[in-house]
This record gives sequence, structure tokens and C-alpha cells, in this order.
Amino acid sequence: MSYKNFPMVPRVVFGRGSFNQLGEILAPKRLNINAPFIFLVDDVFKSDSWLTSRIPLAYNDQIIFVSAAEEPKTEQVDELVESIILKFNERPSGIIGIGGGTLLDLAKAVSIMLTNKGKAQDYQGWDLVKNKAIYHVGIPTISGTGAEVSRTTVLTGPDKKLGINSDFTPFDQVVLDSELTQSVPKNQWFYTGMDCYIHCIESLEGTYLNTFSQSYGDMALSLCEEIFLDDDLSVTESQEKLMMASWHGGMSIVYSQVGVAHAMSYGLSYLLGIKHGIGNCIVFDQLEEFYPEGVKVFKEMKAKHNIVLPQGICSKLNDQELDTMIDISLGLVPLWENALGKNWKRTITRKKLKALYLRM
Amino acid sequence: MSYKNFPMVPRVVFGRGSFNQLGEILAPKRLNINAPFIFLVDDVFKSDSWLTSRIPLAYNDQIIFVSAAEEPKTEQVDELVESIILKFNERPSGIIGIGGGTLLDLAKAVSIMLTNKGKAQDYQGWDLVKNKAIYHVGIPTISGTGAEVSRTTVLTGPDKKLGINSDFTPFDQVVLDSELTQSVPKNQWFYTGMDCYIHCIESLEGTYLNTFSQSYGDMALSLCEEIFLDDDLSVTESQEKLMMASWHGGMSIVYSQVGVAHAMSYGLSYLLGIKHGIGNCIVFDQLEEFYPEGVKVFKEMKAKHNIVLPQGICSKLNDQELDTMIDISLGLVPLWENALGKNWKRTITRKKLKALYLRM
Repeated sequence: MSYKNFPMVPRVVFGRGSFNQLGEILAPKRLNINAPFIFLVDDVFKSDSWLTSRIPLAYNDQIIFVSAAEEPKTEQVDELVESIILKFNERPSGIIGIGGGTLLDLAKAVSIMLTNKGKAQDYQGWDLVKNKAIYHVGIPTISGTGAEVSRTTVLTGPDKKLGINSDFTPFDQVVLDSELTQSVPKNQWFYTGMDCYIHCIESLEGTYLNTFSQSYGDMALSLCEEIFLDDDLSVTESQEKLMMASWHGGMSIVYSQVGVAHAMSYGLSYLLGIKHGIGNCIVFDQLEEFYPEGVKVFKEMKAKHNIVLPQGICSKLNDQELDTMIDISLGLVPLWENALGKNWKRTITRKKLKALYLRM
Repeated sequence: MSYKNFPMVPRVVFGRGSFNQLGEILAPKRLNINAPFIFLVDDVFKSDSWLTSRIPLAYNDQIIFVSAAEEPKTEQVDELVESIILKFNERPSGIIGIGGGTLLDLAKAVSIMLTNKGKAQDYQGWDLVKNKAIYHVGIPTISGTGAEVSRTTVLTGPDKKLGINSDFTPFDQVVLDSELTQSVPKNQWFYTGMDCYIHCIESLEGTYLNTFSQSYGDMALSLCEEIFLDDDLSVTESQEKLMMASWHGGMSIVYSQVGVAHAMSYGLSYLLGIKHGIGNCIVFDQLEEFYPEGVKVFKEMKAKHNIVLPQGICSKLNDQELDTMIDISLGLVPLWENALGKNWKRTITRKKLKALYLRM
């Protein structure tokens, strides 16, 4: 038996307003005046001077605003990398992702692809990255995905949605400033928070679970229940706790894996472009069979926050489209194996998946 | 307000038997065949081939057995460093500490002092270390101190007991193999486990607490209660959970601090050489006034495991000796400030401390 030697984020700042420290954090990492810091920023902040005016720009540092309306794509990573290479004579000093899971994953992937040849799609999988990435910093502005601590960057490629899982993927630095999450729209807050909740359920109910992952999962789960079911937290407390839940939820996956919801949601996302958070919710809502208690509590949370999920999103799909989704989903072997054990194929057939998708 | 940019252990393996992976973990870190790995190993393992035969030795790597009968001293660090410098032509490739808090702290301190001039005592304090330490690995064989994740190495020097707190102090790699804790004697298991429990209480009840530290503290505390009060854990589960409790308890101190028990226990340790774990227990047992609920539960744990603490250890001390302990204790300003707020001196007088010490 060999255990994973997990790479943890080596530096973390936590605190309300800690975003103001970004300048002093980055300064010692500047390689030279021709090696810029590139800030990949969610374009919802484009005219938000409260945030953008505090991005510490010097020399030829650059902000690139990126829409998070769609899930991040390998092609998008390749384009960003090409534009950075063409524009600057030197490799950047660092890539800083400011946003939700999409921006964080893009920042990770761009920092990897600046030092590794070929296309991002070549590295989708496990431990295919050869060279250390460029210094990269993650600054979440919405909590739940766990992208700030994970060793993956999940990308949709030409033929699959799959992460670049590697020891070089995790951020070198994370800034956890819950104040940055204050303007998240309610639905998105819920969907992304539920990404964390669903991580926890899938990790804690999975066959891969060990004591390390369990302790993080228990913590994140109890924070989620406090945030989404209790009424006694202040707004600030709730934002700070969700930031920590996301962190611990991400850590819970270290020795574990996600499960059925993620495996099926990747299919929705690949075919229909449905965003990860809401996709997970749509799938998880139908998974009583696999996670009875988790789904029950999920439905309570949904009701408490008056969240209405889209219905019938798969009802008009033809067989070929359903097959594509099923193929994507079945390809995620470790997720199924974690969820249902080595003999998962006895439970999960194409027919079964089709029936589940048609309920969504 | 400026928040600490905390250095986390960048690599961690967790798993029963993961000690077997040490060879493959170290191999890529070997600088050259003349730069040895030095293993500082608790001398209780001296004739324990179950452990020592699995220490991967090559070239001129060396095992140095060190007694943990006494708390680690600055002088001891200086001697170890000198002996390593004299014996080898090149700086070591790495220092690996295998043992409890004493061995882990020695490994951290030796790795720092191999790259920093002067004596270890010069660096007791906060952020006095100038140069990056040598690659160092921590492998706990007893759980509770949190030394495996902390950014300090607590040493007794000629005039104080105080940590070398720095960004270079944390381990580069930690191996968490709960099997290594299987032979810990019961009393020591309890005292060291209580170090973790007391960390949590002091952190959670402290004025420095924030949401980051709280979430780790809550997790560690609930693990401690499960381990020391419930009866439904297997031996292996209990060992694994205590290993995680120690880890999370250490993380809880990141943005927090320890408090009254540690501040007073440092005095006992400095003057009487009382080991940290038992010293904390002796002090904490008398701290109802400061931590009523925490002390109540501590007494339940003590009773459940039939632990009898030494009594009257201070009763024969003269005033000068008591003054020395009080001086050491009062010098730990951040601990008092965390415990009781900025105006802690209103509560904590020399007279008050003397009365408390005399009860121990």
C-alpha cells in the first residue's frame, strides 16, 4: 500500500481585508521588472473599483478580465498562455487568479502551461505535468469549490471534462479574505456552497475515506450545516465560515474522492455547458438512492433558502446526446469506485444513468 | 490590520505504514553522495529494529539517537550542529526528526542552525531567523504536541524557554503514520494528548481567535473528546484520530495562541525540568478560574484513564525559585494577552501566580 504524498498550499493568509496585503506578498516574488504579474480576474469585477483599485500593479503587470459564465476550457487556457507569451519577452513572475472556481482553475492551468509544452488537453489526467508551474496565487471571491486547496484544475477539453491533477497544480499562495465574497448573488452563493456540501457527503460516504479526509470532511460538513440551516450567524461570520468550509472540504478530497454527483454533473457540464455548482445541485437532488441522508438535508437547505432548481433539462435530449453524457460520466472511474466500491459497474449501467439523467 | 501569512507544511503523507515510503520521499532530495541525511531519533527506539531497520540509510547517512527525557535545549542544538559540521564536509541533504515534540523540535532547530550563524539562543523569539533552513522532515511517534505543523521550535535556553518562531521553522515534509505511536506508554499518551486538548481550549477561549483557528480548534477538540471520553473507537482508529487531532490543534494556533496553562507550564519546565505534556496537565488541573468547562472535562478524562498527577511539586521551592518561574511565565506576553486580553496585568499579578504555583 502506498499513500499519496499530498502537496499542501505552502502559504495562506486568512482575514477580513487581507486582500490589501497582496502587494507586500507579491513584491518579493517579482523576478525582474520585465517579468510581470498577470492578474486573471472575474469580469464581474470589471467596473468594481473597490476591488480593482487594490490590485497592486507595477511595471508592465497586467489585469486580464475573464468571464466565468462558462466552465473553463483547455482551449481558453491555450489562448491565454499564447497571448501572454506573445505580449511579454519574459515569463511572468506570477499568475494571480481572483474569482470563483473558474478563475482559480484558469490561473492554475495557465501557470502550468507557461512552463510545459503542448496543449492543456495533453495534461488532463493524473500526474502528466513535467515541469514546475510559474508561481501562482489563488484569491477566491466565492466560497465552496475547494479549488483554492485542491491539486487539480478541472477543464473541459475537446473530448473530456477532466482535471489536470498534479503536484504542481496547487497554489503557492492563497489569500482568504471573506470580504471579497460579499456581493455574490444569492443563487450562486447557494450553488457554490452546495459544491462544498456535496464534496463532503461524497467524501464521507465514499469507500476511499480515511481518518485524514474524514476529519476535514466532518469539519466542513458541520460548518455547511451551520451556515445553511441555522439562523444565528452574522453575515460576516457566515461568509468566513463558508470560506473555511470550502477549504476543509477541499482538503477532505485529498485522500478521498468525490462521487456520483460529480461524475454525473461532469456529463451535464460537458454536453450542456451547465456550470459546476448548479449542475451538482441538479444531479444531487436526484440521488436519494446513493446518499439518502445527505439528499434529505440538501432538500431542507434548498427549501430554507427558496432555491428552485431548473427542471427537465435533459428531457429533450436525443439518444446520441444522452450517450455522450453517459460516456463522459462513466469515464470518471475513480469517482465511481470511491462512491460504490470496486464493483461499481454492477450498480451503474448505461440504462441506469440514462434513467437518472432523464429525471433531471 | 495585517494578517499573518502562515507557512503550511508543503507535503504530508498520512497512512498506516506510510513510514515505509520514507526512502522514496527522501531520494529526490539528496543533494549529492557527500551530503548525508541525518536522522535524529528518540533513543527509546535504539534497539527497536521494527523501526530502525526501516530507516533508509545510504552513503554516509547517519542516525543520531537522542534522549527525550528532558525538554530540548538551545545548548543541545548547538552541540548537535557542531558535531554535524565537524563530521561532514558538506551540509546535510536533510534532517529527519523521528520522535515526539522534543525530537521534532530538535530537528527543526538543527536544520535552522545549520544555515544560520551564532547560537540557537540568539534566535529564540519571533522572526529572527535570516536564512532558509536545511530540508527537514518530521515524523511523529507520539501525538498531541502539534510540533509537526507549528512554526515554532520551543527550546530552553540559558535565560528563557521560548520558541524559535519563524517562517523557516515548519517542516518541509511530514509523515503521519499512526502505527509509529503504538508503543507509547499510557501516561505519556495521556499527557501528550492533553497537550493537544489544552491547545484547543486555550485557542478557542482566547481573545486572538478567528474563524480559521476556530474551525481547526473545534475539529481537534471534538476528536480529543471522542478519543478520551468515548469507548467506541478501535485502537487503530484512536491512534489515527489523535494524530489528526494533534495536526488540527497545531493548525488552530496559527492565528491564535496558547494561554494560561502554557505560560505557567513554561515556568515549571524552565526551573524544574518538568516535561511539557505533564507540566501542562499539572497546571491546567488548577485553572478552573480561567477555563471552567475545559478543566471540568479534563478532570473527567483524567478520572476515566486513572491518571494520577504529581502533587506538591512547588511546595518546597524558595521565594527566589518561585520568582524565577514567575519571571519566565510573565515574559510570555502574547500568551497572556491571548488568554485575558490587553489588560491581562490587572488579573495576573506576581502574587496571583505564586498562589497558583503553590497549589501545584
